[in-house]
Amino acid sequence: MKGYGMIEIGKPGWLDNPRPVCGPLDALVRPTIVAPCSSDTHVMHGGNGPKFNLILGHEAVGEVVEVGELVTKFKPGDFVVVPCCTPDWNELGVQNFKSFSHDVGMLKSFKFLGAKDGVFGEVFHVNFADANLAPLLEGVSPEAALLTVDMMSTGFHGVEQAEIEYGDKVVVIGIGPVGLMAVAGAALAGAGQIIAVGTRPNCRKVATEYGATDLISYKDGDIVEKVHELTGGGSNKTIIAGGDKTTFTQAVAMTKEMGIISNVNFFDVTDVLSMPAYLWGLGMAHKDIRGGFCPGGAERIIRMQELIKHGRVDTTKLITHTFKGFDKIEDAFLMMDQKPADLIKPVVYTD
Amino acid sequence: MKGYGMIEIGKPGWLDNPRPVCGPLDALVRPTIVAPCSSDTHVMHGGNGPKFNLILGHEAVGEVVEVGELVTKFKPGDFVVVPCCTPDWNELGVQNFKSFSHDVGMLKSFKFLGAKDGVFGEVFHVNFADANLAPLLEGVSPEAALLTVDMMSTGFHGVEQAEIEYGDKVVVIGIGPVGLMAVAGAALAGAGQIIAVGTRPNCRKVATEYGATDLISYKDGDIVEKVHELTGGGSNKTIIAGGDKTTFTQAVAMTKEMGIISNVNFFDVTDVLSMPAYLWGLGMAHKDIRGGFCPGGAERIIRMQELIKHGRVDTTKLITHTFKGFDKIEDAFLMMDQKPADLIKPVVYTD
Amino acid sequence: MKGYGMIEIGKPGWLDNPRPVCGPLDALVRPTIVAPCSSDTHVMHGGNGPKFNLILGHEAVGEVVEVGELVTKFKPGDFVVVPCCTPDWNELGVQNFKSFSHDVGMLKSFKFLGAKDGVFGEVFHVNFADANLAPLLEGVSPEAALLTVDMMSTGFHGVEQAEIEYGDKVVVIGIGPVGLMAVAGAALAGAGQIIAVGTRPNCRKVATEYGATDLISYKDGDIVEKVHELTGGGSNKTIIAGGDKTTFTQAVAMTKEMGIISNVNFFDVTDVLSMPAYLWGLGMAHKDIRGGFCPGGAERIIRMQELIKHGRVDTTKLITHTFKGFDKIEDAFLMMDQKPADLIKPVVYTD
Amino acid sequence: MKGYGMIEIGKPGWLDNPRPVCGPLDALVRPTIVAPCSSDTHVMHGGNGPKFNLILGHEAVGEVVEVGELVTKFKPGDFVVVPCCTPDWNELGVQNFKSFSHDVGMLKSFKFLGAKDGVFGEVFHVNFADANLAPLLEGVSPEAALLTVDMMSTGFHGVEQAEIEYGDKVVVIGIGPVGLMAVAGAALAGAGQIIAVGTRPNCRKVATEYGATDLISYKDGDIVEKVHELTGGGSNKTIIAGGDKTTFTQAVAMTKEMGIISNVNFFDVTDVLSMPAYLWGLGMAHKDIRGGFCPGGAERIIRMQELIKHGRVDTTKLITHTFKGFDKIEDAFLMMDQKPADLIKPVVYTD
Repeated sequence: MKGYGMIEIGKPGWLDNPRPVCGPLDALVRPTIVAPCSSDTHVMHGGNGPKFNLILGHEAVGEVVEVGELVTKFKPGDFVVVPCCTPDWNELGVQNFKSFSHDVGMLKSFKFLGAKDGVFGEVFHVNFADANLAPLLEGVSPEAALLTVDMMSTGFHGVEQAEIEYGDKVVVIGIGPVGLMAVAGAALAGAGQIIAVGTRPNCRKVATEYGATDLISYKDGDIVEKVHELTGGGSNKTIIAGGDKTTFTQAVAMTKEMGIISNVNFFDVTDVLSMPAYLWGLGMAHKDIRGGFCPGGAERIIRMQELIKHGRVDTTKLITHTFKGFDKIEDAFLMMDQKPADLIKPVVYTD
Repeated sequence: MKGYGMIEIGKPGWLDNPRPVCGPLDALVRPTIVAPCSSDTHVMHGGNGPKFNLILGHEAVGEVVEVGELVTKFKPGDFVVVPCCTPDWNELGVQNFKSFSHDVGMLKSFKFLGAKDGVFGEVFHVNFADANLAPLLEGVSPEAALLTVDMMSTGFHGVEQAEIEYGDKVVVIGIGPVGLMAVAGAALAGAGQIIAVGTRPNCRKVATEYGATDLISYKDGDIVEKVHELTGGGSNKTIIAGGDKTTFTQAVAMTKEMGIISNVNFFDVTDVLSMPAYLWGLGMAHKDIRGGFCPGGAERIIRMQELIKHGRVDTTKLITHTFKGFDKIEDAFLMMDQKPADLIKPVVYTD
Repeated sequence: MKGYGMIEIGKPGWLDNPRPVCGPLDALVRPTIVAPCSSDTHVMHGGNGPKFNLILGHEAVGEVVEVGELVTKFKPGDFVVVPCCTPDWNELGVQNFKSFSHDVGMLKSFKFLGAKDGVFGEVFHVNFADANLAPLLEGVSPEAALLTVDMMSTGFHGVEQAEIEYGDKVVVIGIGPVGLMAVAGAALAGAGQIIAVGTRPNCRKVATEYGATDLISYKDGDIVEKVHELTGGGSNKTIIAGGDKTTFTQAVAMTKEMGIISNVNFFDVTDVLSMPAYLWGLGMAHKDIRGGFCPGGAERIIRMQELIKHGRVDTTKLITHTFKGFDKIEDAFLMMDQKPADLIKPVVYTD
Repeated sequence: MKGYGMIEIGKPGWLDNPRPVCGPLDALVRPTIVAPCSSDTHVMHGGNGPKFNLILGHEAVGEVVEVGELVTKFKPGDFVVVPCCTPDWNELGVQNFKSFSHDVGMLKSFKFLGAKDGVFGEVFHVNFADANLAPLLEGVSPEAALLTVDMMSTGFHGVEQAEIEYGDKVVVIGIGPVGLMAVAGAALAGAGQIIAVGTRPNCRKVATEYGATDLISYKDGDIVEKVHELTGGGSNKTIIAGGDKTTFTQAVAMTKEMGIISNVNFFDVTDVLSMPAYLWGLGMAHKDIRGGFCPGGAERIIRMQELIKHGRVDTTKLITHTFKGFDKIEDAFLMMDQKPADLIKPVVYTD
């Protein structure tokens, strides 16, 4: 079975891997629209350690082609939206009211990019199909739905962790697609002022459309100072959706006492995150620091679609580049890797 | 000092009451814009028990005319926005992380309409001025601010109690000004579908502008059935912003397991609220039932204004009738009492 | 297969029902210790509607005798503790961070007593075995574990819903086994004063041992007045673990503003629960009213056992009567139905 | 007025400072029992920057000797318990449902040790007396109450931040008086296993009495490894109540995904707190990191006393050394500075 991914670290390419086996609770899905993500290119560059002949990709909508004998809600031919995070629901790690991301250990509910081939194959495998596949809701376009499975779910999770209250002053650091969704999510969660931190004109334009009230850039001086100035003393909530280890320290520095720093950015495995104690009130400031992977399962993706269906958010503003044909996954992937200045998100229609 | 209120139950009229005394922590404020509310007319009709020669009114913005010697943040001439709920902040009832409405007992933070003369006087009294008076934020009009002090704060509190999560299906019962603000607040809190229950064309139009996706009416059949039909099984959250004791039962009936019923409507002192146990899963359904007065204090009103300032909501859509002159308080009050079909909210500019 | 249950409403007796079929995700368990519960007798008397030839029982520990081919964590011969609430984990109703009790609808995670034969058979069926069966923890006796699966889990859930804060004044109404566990759970959740409402000497003695500071009885006058007197103005949290529809009204009446009423009692299907609006601050008191079934799944029961293992609570204080032999299930059941004055909980060792 | 404190950094001694002035909302209190705390000695050594002729001390119970004219609840002669954190309740920083510690900015509600003379004087000053002074509850000894105002309130706040759920595996790092209170508080919040980290025999003994199930020591090897071994994979909640910047990293390392790290330890102003990203799941682990000062105000201290009154905790186990006479404040302070091996907490009866 043909698929696109990494031959080894640093070497993307086409692969011929075995077609996945469909267990009794599983489904096989043929992707009809996919999108590469910077997590895919990050893994290709070694961010998840050595991997060989691994099909990448974790954002897809598509058509069910096979279901296991215990699957009751889906059948071949159904069109489905596939969460990037697909827990094994019979593991005790999901029986916790905080997150479904950690079924048998930290991040283990995230199966693509690590435990098995991803969605850039002719078909791909989904565990616990009844619990993890979402139908496409009426009134939602497939490409809009595609952008819920990671971008929207993750960006909105950044907002959820931030526990925004009416009138909060919010900063979103990083306005790639996840950060842009965090901006939209913050506006939909009751934020007043929303300061978006980023430089690319395309992204700044969409940030404003999604509800950002102020735009600042690393290039125009210290963003911590700038946030203090614009907010009159610091943000209530700061969402990290991009950047590096320095961003972590800045986020703590720009957030007021009793605030929350919420991370949805993958840091590098070699990073050390640090903060001077005085920025954290010597440990007394009631500034919470949180970070977590986007929640898994179908219910989540249905809820994201409800927001699209009822006109609360238009995820397709993120799509800057469109490709046609399964073979174009390569072009889209390489584009994501090179990040041209006008890119937010490329999508590939495989048919 | 002249003021408008109730001479006795059922008898509104102009009064000549003593000018309030300004204690060391207090302020006296001359109202420049006021609005009557159905709570004012409710009290006039006896809803709060017998009252004599009581100046009514609890929604005002205005100019500080006197401050006590311990007040440090305000001085005569300052323009201020006055929360309808003004706690005594040295009472232990506010040292609770749940609400500031109950300083020395149930609802005791609500001083107007009961404990003292209201805002429909030449001047009115505000306790704990430093903690209870809010400045008018730049970019917010006085009339927009006026509508935060009860209508928006109360309607949004209905949403806060409902703990809306992204994609929730929400019902708002009653779309007078508080219910309309609950619709706007629900959209700003991440609701997907929002079903507004009400009949008056004006209100229905504004409800749609504020984010309602469906409009239903008592006149078109059983609203419980209709909600079940429109939501496919019941709402996740139901906000009661109008109606009577029957509404309470309906709200429980239309809400799904694991949902929340949130009340911000004053029930009548003679009402008995009831629900058949089977609608509440015999006590096992995890349907929470909540109800509470809007939070007091200046911080709240600043946060409400932040939302207006940053364009998240336009409260002035509620204003359907405008009066000029202090003497017109009477006309506005009587209009609120009679509720003509096209009324949402009248405001009176006193100058 | 032999089992004890109801032949029809009002007629308990021995049955010869088909041995359950073990699906691929399921297990069959032979009970080694069981306990009847008032829910069993309630169903026998028609509380759950007409039922015929239904084996009753939902509290058991036992030995696995068969597992489906997809079960990986358990094998025949394993000793297991079986939660009374066993969700189907591939249903979307569990993908909610509030409760796991409602897999495909209200209370549907509770399979015994309704959807299938219960634990008073030679073997009984457990769905989603890997997620629903708990191992017996080292240091926990089987009979102590038996009392976690409903009594402790339910009583403690009453406390969880009450969100007790340090120093809260708590009332527990009803001190049968669930209420007693609520007393113990409240003490373990930071309650200060705990007022237990009940009359039976045995139960009152155990309530005191579990941490009740005051004991009151329906027989000594109005419990609402008594609670107001003992607490100096009302309880912060009131847990309903027994009584009838009158209890509901009393619970609302005895709870202070900003308090929580938490129900874990099954009301009757014909009950109408009611409260005068003034007891609820006309809807403004911030008195939350909650009620819910005990959380399902293995993780919960492991956590309950952790508390026993580490000496936080001794559930065996509840056991007042012990029977030996499978046939004695009948005696224990009839005893539970008749509730002699000295009964808290009978258990039956089947071997 | 005589008082004990710091002449300058590193130089403790007796001072003759002006008697504080009692404002209209304030009280002056003569301390009858006081306790030095390591925060006092920390400030003396420069932990709060240069200070000159500052009376130290922030833990006291005593007798009211003067009240301002607006104080209504207290009068000279009343015996009072004084929270170490005394907010100005007319500042907007307290109108936040998260904490009362930050009235006009980070930690500004903590008035002693920085903004004014402390409690080691002949009299000391309390702002907002009606809101900040707590009566001594019947059934609580003065010395037991003394230990609530910082030690218990702070230790228990460590537990509150940790949001303990039934059966959680909890680590408390540092078992000085605050850590010991965190152990007691964790047991009272539903923890199962409680691992206390500390070396001093006295403290270990009291930790066990307060509910610790395991004791480990820095001296016996890597505490992170030890915690992983004892818990079988990591703690659910880790409370930092002592140690240094290394402790912060260890706390993150020993806590499981979906866990909480809760700090109540003052870090040094020169510390940089750090964690390797992989210990934090690269930002994806849902491990919350929190830290905050103990909540201020009288209600808190009343609640702490309720727990003592009802026998939930005995704070006097912390008292290892007792002094008689105002002049002995010096001996107690120097003892706290030198921390002899058998010290937990010294108290000084001033009469």
